[in-house]
Amino acid sequence: MKRNLLLTPGPTQVPPQLCEALGRPIIHHRTPQFQNNIKQVVDGLKEIYQTKNDIYILTSSGSGAMEAAVVNLLSPGDKAIAVDSGKFGERWVELCQTYKADTIAHKVQWGKVPTAAEIKSLLDKNPDTKAVFITLAETSTGVTPDVKAIGDVVKNTKAVLVVDAVSGLAVQEMKTDEWHCDMVVSGSHKGLMLPPGLAFVSASAKAIDLINKSTTPRYYFDLREYKKAMEKTDTPFTPAIGVLIALVDSINMVKKEGLNNMLTRYAHLARAVRAGCAAIGLELFPDQNCATNVLTAVKVPANIDGEKLVKTMRDTYGITVAGGQDHLKGKVIRIAHMGALDEYDILTGLACLEKVLHQMGHKFELGAALTAAQKSLNSK
Amino acid sequence: MKRNLLLTPGPTQVPPQLCEALGRPIIHHRTPQFQNNIKQVVDGLKEIYQTKNDIYILTSSGSGAMEAAVVNLLSPGDKAIAVDSGKFGERWVELCQTYKADTIAHKVQWGKVPTAAEIKSLLDKNPDTKAVFITLAETSTGVTPDVKAIGDVVKNTKAVLVVDAVSGLAVQEMKTDEWHCDMVVSGSHKGLMLPPGLAFVSASAKAIDLINKSTTPRYYFDLREYKKAMEKTDTPFTPAIGVLIALVDSINMVKKEGLNNMLTRYAHLARAVRAGCAAIGLELFPDQNCATNVLTAVKVPANIDGEKLVKTMRDTYGITVAGGQDHLKGKVIRIAHMGALDEYDILTGLACLEKVLHQMGHKFELGAALTAAQKSLNSK
Repeated sequence: MKRNLLLTPGPTQVPPQLCEALGRPIIHHRTPQFQNNIKQVVDGLKEIYQTKNDIYILTSSGSGAMEAAVVNLLSPGDKAIAVDSGKFGERWVELCQTYKADTIAHKVQWGKVPTAAEIKSLLDKNPDTKAVFITLAETSTGVTPDVKAIGDVVKNTKAVLVVDAVSGLAVQEMKTDEWHCDMVVSGSHKGLMLPPGLAFVSASAKAIDLINKSTTPRYYFDLREYKKAMEKTDTPFTPAIGVLIALVDSINMVKKEGLNNMLTRYAHLARAVRAGCAAIGLELFPDQNCATNVLTAVKVPANIDGEKLVKTMRDTYGITVAGGQDHLKGKVIRIAHMGALDEYDILTGLACLEKVLHQMGHKFELGAALTAAQKSLNSK
Repeated sequence: MKRNLLLTPGPTQVPPQLCEALGRPIIHHRTPQFQNNIKQVVDGLKEIYQTKNDIYILTSSGSGAMEAAVVNLLSPGDKAIAVDSGKFGERWVELCQTYKADTIAHKVQWGKVPTAAEIKSLLDKNPDTKAVFITLAETSTGVTPDVKAIGDVVKNTKAVLVVDAVSGLAVQEMKTDEWHCDMVVSGSHKGLMLPPGLAFVSASAKAIDLINKSTTPRYYFDLREYKKAMEKTDTPFTPAIGVLIALVDSINMVKKEGLNNMLTRYAHLARAVRAGCAAIGLELFPDQNCATNVLTAVKVPANIDGEKLVKTMRDTYGITVAGGQDHLKGKVIRIAHMGALDEYDILTGLACLEKVLHQMGHKFELGAALTAAQKSLNSK
C-alpha cells in the first residue's frame, strides 16, 4: 500500500466526496436539469470571485482561459503590459506577442513581485495601454503581488487589469470588484479541488467594452458568444459536463467551510510548511514578504539533487511535490498547500521530505521539521 | 424512481465501469505514472482511428479541435472548401471564415451528403485549395458521406482532407489511413462513452507540412507544441486528467468488444430504431442511402409538437432524445444509438416514444414500434 498525496500546485487532491460526484452518471447539457447546475456554478463562482461581473465557463485548461483574455481584449497592435515574474507571467507575454499586441514585457526577477509603483510608471509612460496582465499566485516561484495596490493604479487609466488567478482563486484573497480587477481567469483543478477541464473568466463592463471592440479573430474562445449563451444559462459549446456537475458540490464545500475560513486554513498550513522547512535548513526561495499561501518554494541544499528528491518522494513513497522549472530545475522544490488538505497531510508531506533528505545525506535532526510544523500548527 | 437514459448524439451514456474510473483519485500529469496513461491512450486511439499518423490530445470540446484544424492548416487568404450539410458542416464554414480563409462554402441540402464528384469538380476549378473540410456523421440531419470516395479524390490534389469525426469515431467505420484522411478530429463524449473534456486530432505528413507553414496566430491550439510534447509523451498544457485516466478503460472496453463488433452493434441498433419508427409512421428525415448509424433523425407527424414530445420524454420519463436544430426545431427528433447502449435500451427508448406519442394523440397501435424493432433485432 502506497499513499497518493498531491502536494502539487495543480492538480490538487480531489476529496472523496468530489470523487463520488465525478463518478455519477452524466446528464445532457441542453436541458433544464443541467441549466440548474450552470446557474448554481455561476452564482457560486461569483461569491468566490467576490464579484458582480459576468462569469463565463470555458472547457479548457487555465491556459485556454488566458488565451481567451488576450484574444478578446486586444486587437493586433494594441499596447499591453504583461508582467513576467515567472513561468506563468511569461505565458502572458507569449500570448500577447503571439496575437500581435504591442507588448511591454515587464520582467521581474524570479522570487520577487511587480510593485504598483512600477506599473504606475509604465502606465504613465504608456497612456495608450489597453491591458495590464498580472499573476495572482506565480507558482513557479511562490509569490503573490499586491493586487489591490496595482488595481488602484490601473483603475484610473484606460487599461483593464487582467489577473491570472488560476492557482490563486479560493486559496488566497481575490477581491475582484473591490480591487478593480476587470478580468480574472481561473480553473477547476486548483482551489476548487476538481480535475482539470473547466476554466472561468470574469469580465467587468470595462472589459466587455474591449471584448466588443477587439478585432482579433476568435471562435472557440469568443467571449461574445459566451456572454450570449450565459444570458440563457447555457454554454456556446459542449461543456465538460462531468466536472461542472461536480463543481456544484465543490462550491457547496467552499460555502460550508466558509471562504474566509478556507483562506485562513491555507495561511495556517503555509506557515507550518515554512517553519518545518526552515527547521531543517531549507531556505525560502522567494522574498518572505511576497510569498503566496498557495505553495512554498524552498531552495534545495547545495549537496542534494532536487530532481531525485522529488522523484523519490513520488515514486517510492507516493507523495507528490513539484520540482523547479526552467533554470530552477533541481534547485528548488515546491510544496503546495491548497485544495483538500489538512494539518495531517502537511505533516505527512514533511515527514516524507525528512525521510528522503535524510536518505540522501542531508544533515539535520530527524523530526525537526515535524516539530517546528506541529508547533506552528498549534500556536494561537 | 426515474430512468436517466441518454439517447442523444453526445454526450452519450457513461457506463458504470467508466463512472467508477472517473471517480478515482487523480494523479499529477507531469509524472511517469501519468505518461503511462498518455501512451496507452495514444496507442489505443491509433487503433480506433486506424492510423499510423500522429495523434494529439487537446483539452476542449470537439469544436476546439475543429478550431485547431483550421488555425493550424490554413493561413489567412488560403483557399478552403468547407462542406456545409448541416449544423456541424456550418461550423467548418464559420471557422474558415473567422480565420480569414478564402472559403468556398459548399452548401448541401439538409438530409443529403456531398458527393465525391462534387468535391472533384470544386477541386478541379480551384486547384490552389489547401484543405477540404467534411463531416463524418452530421448529427443535425443524420447523414454520413462516402468519405472513402472523397478521400480518393482529394489525395490526388495539393489539398488535405479534414474530417470532423467528433460524433462518428468508434460508432461507424473511420479508416483514417486507407481513406487518405489527413486530419481527423474527435472527442471523448461520443463513441468513447465518457464526459466531454478531451478532444483528439490526427495529422498526416501532408497535414504536418501545412501545420508548419501556417501563419495564423495560435497558442492554446498550436499543434506544433502538441507534436513536440507528444514526442515526450506529454501535453503542452494541463490536460483533463480525470477523463484521460478513464479513457484508458474506455479504450480497453472497445478492444474487449472489438471495434468491428461495436460498429456492427450500432448498425444493428440503427436498423431496429428505423424499423420501429417506420412501424408507427415516423418517416426518416435524411435520404435512406446516406443515413448514419450514429443516430436516426425522423420527421415528427404534422399534428405533433416535436419540442413537447422531447420535453415530455425527458422531463416526465427520464429518456433523453434530441430535438431538431435551426429550421428543423419541433419538426424532427433525433434518436442516437451510440455509446454504451444495448438492444434493451433501444426498446426502452421506443417504448417511451410510443407512450408519449400515444398521449399526444398520434394514431398507431401501441407496441407496433416495439414489435418491429424486436423483429429487426432478432433477424439473422
